[in-house]
Amino acid sequence: MYISKKEIQVSYADTDMMGIIYHANYLKWFELGRTQLIEDVGYSYAEMEKSGYCAPVLKIEITYKKPIRYGERVMVETWIEENHGLKTTYGYHVVNGEGDLCAFGTTRHAVVRKDNFKPVQFMKYFPGWFQKYEEIKKK
Amino acid sequence: MYISKKEIQVSYADTDMMGIIYHANYLKWFELGRTQLIEDVGYSYAEMEKSGYCAPVLKIEITYKKPIRYGERVMVETWIEENHGLKTTYGYHVVNGEGDLCAFGTTRHAVVRKDNFKPVQFMKYFPGWFQKYEEIKKK
Amino acid sequence: MYISKKEIQVSYADTDMMGIIYHANYLKWFELGRTQLIEDVGYSYAEMEKSGYCAPVLKIEITYKKPIRYGERVMVETWIEENHGLKTTYGYHVVNGEGDLCAFGTTRHAVVRKDNFKPVQFMKYFPGWFQKYEEIKKK
Amino acid sequence: MYISKKEIQVSYADTDMMGIIYHANYLKWFELGRTQLIEDVGYSYAEMEKSGYCAPVLKIEITYKKPIRYGERVMVETWIEENHGLKTTYGYHVVNGEGDLCAFGTTRHAVVRKDNFKPVQFMKYFPGWFQKYEEIKKK
Repeated sequence: MYISKKEIQVSYADTDMMGIIYHANYLKWFELGRTQLIEDVGYSYAEMEKSGYCAPVLKIEITYKKPIRYGERVMVETWIEENHGLKTTYGYHVVNGEGDLCAFGTTRHAVVRKDNFKPVQFMKYFPGWFQKYEEIKKK
Repeated sequence: MYISKKEIQVSYADTDMMGIIYHANYLKWFELGRTQLIEDVGYSYAEMEKSGYCAPVLKIEITYKKPIRYGERVMVETWIEENHGLKTTYGYHVVNGEGDLCAFGTTRHAVVRKDNFKPVQFMKYFPGWFQKYEEIKKK
Repeated sequence: MYISKKEIQVSYADTDMMGIIYHANYLKWFELGRTQLIEDVGYSYAEMEKSGYCAPVLKIEITYKKPIRYGERVMVETWIEENHGLKTTYGYHVVNGEGDLCAFGTTRHAVVRKDNFKPVQFMKYFPGWFQKYEEIKKK
Repeated sequence: MYISKKEIQVSYADTDMMGIIYHANYLKWFELGRTQLIEDVGYSYAEMEKSGYCAPVLKIEITYKKPIRYGERVMVETWIEENHGLKTTYGYHVVNGEGDLCAFGTTRHAVVRKDNFKPVQFMKYFPGWFQKYEEIKKK
């Protein structure tokens, strides 16, 4: 299984009045992690969109273990949890500068046409990309 | 079971280049729905914080069924899915102006001290509030 | 001069670790105020976009007088500060529940084609809307 | 004059349905640029807050010259535009991967006590930091 690593730019804007990172902002970090994994294996989400397709989120699960504060280093580790013809699930670990697992989760995606949001077969429309995910996915 | 209803102010800022609402923003809507439910039953999250406690998110699940576009009306329906001494789970429906169920999910929370994030018994520290949730929760 | 009033849904997500609303979020409130003014005079920004045009921000000025905290009521007052053939400037007051002026500012906009971002004459492409702004603008 | 350079992580979350970066998000980039400049000269905003002070924004001006799209590289250049005993103004350039100036602006800040938001003399409470700004500021 290949695990992509992405260091995150944590912004003061991401904090809330509890003095920690607001929970919804972790989903932006998942997005950055996912985008990095795609680049690591030689593809580009921006290029997918230019070709008329996009990959909206169908389902998210996230568990928060330890709050993250402004000034901490944050790393997102991303892998392919599952890969099917119509749906791909990414797995994530959010790790702080001490190596503590602060949160973990998954996001499930489909590939759809940008103009009508109708799902298409990832396997058929992006065969090289799909095949790459087969190779690196969690066994 | 009591269901709180909250109409959401959808902002252009919440959209993304797919032309739909960016998925992480639904979590802000869940927050607004949850806050409304709390007010509906006579309490105030802001007052909880002033008294030295807060209720961070422990776990989120959300499933997206239908994209929401700028200009659509959005309603969040919120209820108490589960209520235990240490953890409360809220349930949510996101509904558009045509009454379509666009997304649904849950968020699980604990009550903790603001100064050290140590969990406390919701039941014991906010007994009236806890009891109210017992009355209105999903049976 | 017509002044539109819009009550804002303040979210916990909008706070930062100073315990106040993060400054960039006021720009989202300006957006909500501006959208309300447009609706008040009988038009719709969403409809402008459907017809192939949009109105990006060219310039912003904002002065912060008093911090706003979670739990406070927030009202945005919006008016037409200037209106020219190519550029329209909106003026804003951000007022809390006690009526204190917490921030004020302006945003300048042009109307452009969505496909190439080339500016067009607001006066010529949306003559009724432009005329309405002439009537209600600051004298 | 010293100019700090910071490459920005542009997120899909930052886009809007115009297909460009939503204007308010540039202010988060200004924040990242400012934080980098502070680190470049040997200080830390996070440490300022730990010592009981913070530096809220008093005034912002920003002019947008050219839209930025997802997938573009973004660099923020930050410098000290003005530095007085009570107020410091940072200047910013937002530059894309082709070196185009896409936006520019300023933010003015005061140092205040975190507990009551009363302004204090930056010069007096952080003399080394203030002196450093005197050396690197725009002449």
